Amino acid sequence: MRGRHKKWAAPYIAKHPEKIVTNPDPLQGKWESRFPKKQPIYLEIGTGKGQFIDTISKLHPEINFVGVEMDESVVAMALRKVVNHHRDNVQLVEANANRVCDFFKPHQIDRLFLNFSDPWPKKRHAKRRLTSPRFLPRYQKILAPNALIKFKTDNRNLFEYSLKSMNNYGLKFDDVTLDLHHSKENEHNIVTEYEEKTMYKGPIYRIVVHFPVKSNR
Amino acid sequence: MRGRHKKWAAPYIAKHPEKIVTNPDPLQGKWESRFPKKQPIYLEIGTGKGQFIDTISKLHPEINFVGVEMDESVVAMALRKVVNHHRDNVQLVEANANRVCDFFKPHQIDRLFLNFSDPWPKKRHAKRRLTSPRFLPRYQKILAPNALIKFKTDNRNLFEYSLKSMNNYGLKFDDVTLDLHHSKENEHNIVTEYEEKTMYKGPIYRIVVHFPVKSNR
Repeated sequence: MRGRHKKWAAPYIAKHPEKIVTNPDPLQGKWESRFPKKQPIYLEIGTGKGQFIDTISKLHPEINFVGVEMDESVVAMALRKVVNHHRDNVQLVEANANRVCDFFKPHQIDRLFLNFSDPWPKKRHAKRRLTSPRFLPRYQKILAPNALIKFKTDNRNLFEYSLKSMNNYGLKFDDVTLDLHHSKENEHNIVTEYEEKTMYKGPIYRIVVHFPVKSNR
Repeated sequence: MRGRHKKWAAPYIAKHPEKIVTNPDPLQGKWESRFPKKQPIYLEIGTGKGQFIDTISKLHPEINFVGVEMDESVVAMALRKVVNHHRDNVQLVEANANRVCDFFKPHQIDRLFLNFSDPWPKKRHAKRRLTSPRFLPRYQKILAPNALIKFKTDNRNLFEYSLKSMNNYGLKFDDVTLDLHHSKENEHNIVTEYEEKTMYKGPIYRIVVHFPVKSNR
């Protein structure tokens, strides 16, 4: 799924410190300083090549967006989009998602997007899936009360796993769509690069959930 | 989906009071009297033409099975199967599922099967779906602690609705399969009449759930 290493990536990232952060920890609690306007923050974990965050940030100037991606060559492609399109309301972070609590304070995030996350198909890698019980408590920490998580994937096994994992953790389901592109929910769907290629091969699954205000655990 | 009215149904049912009950209320707490052996009871709501209960009861002589179906012509076809095959461990009930608490005592049922339940596609009929919040508390009442509910359907909208409804009610997901016939779970799957016809048209969805011992509500 990932492309090969891009030589131009590192110097390009170094040239755009106004749009991308490689050491996000000092920004904990200070993300307003990175945006012209103080407004709600939506987070995308696994931003990939950035088509989603580039599109949604154009449609929603009233929201600030942060995109986290750990692959340097990939995040550089996202960076190129938001630089060329002058997206004032986007900040990118080159970092591993499992450190997300280190660079956001509790309840700072108003919505979380997980788009076509790595399925990690092997059972012994289940912990690395972004919907595993290892990651859910981190999201719970940084998300505001009743903030939504929107997760979509074309990977059946990952979606089955995620339904179970999210349910068992006590998350409340707001919406489940087992064929997004053939449902009325598709009207407002913003397609990722990967989704454009995969959407004709089989269904896209999507779930919208939130943490209960009082945890069930 | 349902066939037409069958003239032979009513007299055939009347001829087999040893296998089918049309007035189940007096049996509340007395179901052992209807079976040769005292053993766990598995319930199927919406037994249809009976292929499922007929097959599973043969494979599991160590379980007593009760099948509830309200359509007289349909339950008569199920009855014909279990009579002809001498299924000692099957009892049929001609009744409406919403009265299930009237003919079972609390915690008497050790497993519940919902197979290809009527999808009731119109929103104003949602309450009639067998996985609606109107039915779930009834199942909770009659099921033993940690007893499983196994629900399968080919209807995407019904399954989406059911995932949400069951999650919101606090049920715990043991397994979710979004394409039963192409998963390892299919090995022990017992196919219904309807499933035989529909399984080549699209995926069969299945979920296995249980009520938490302490309710989350």
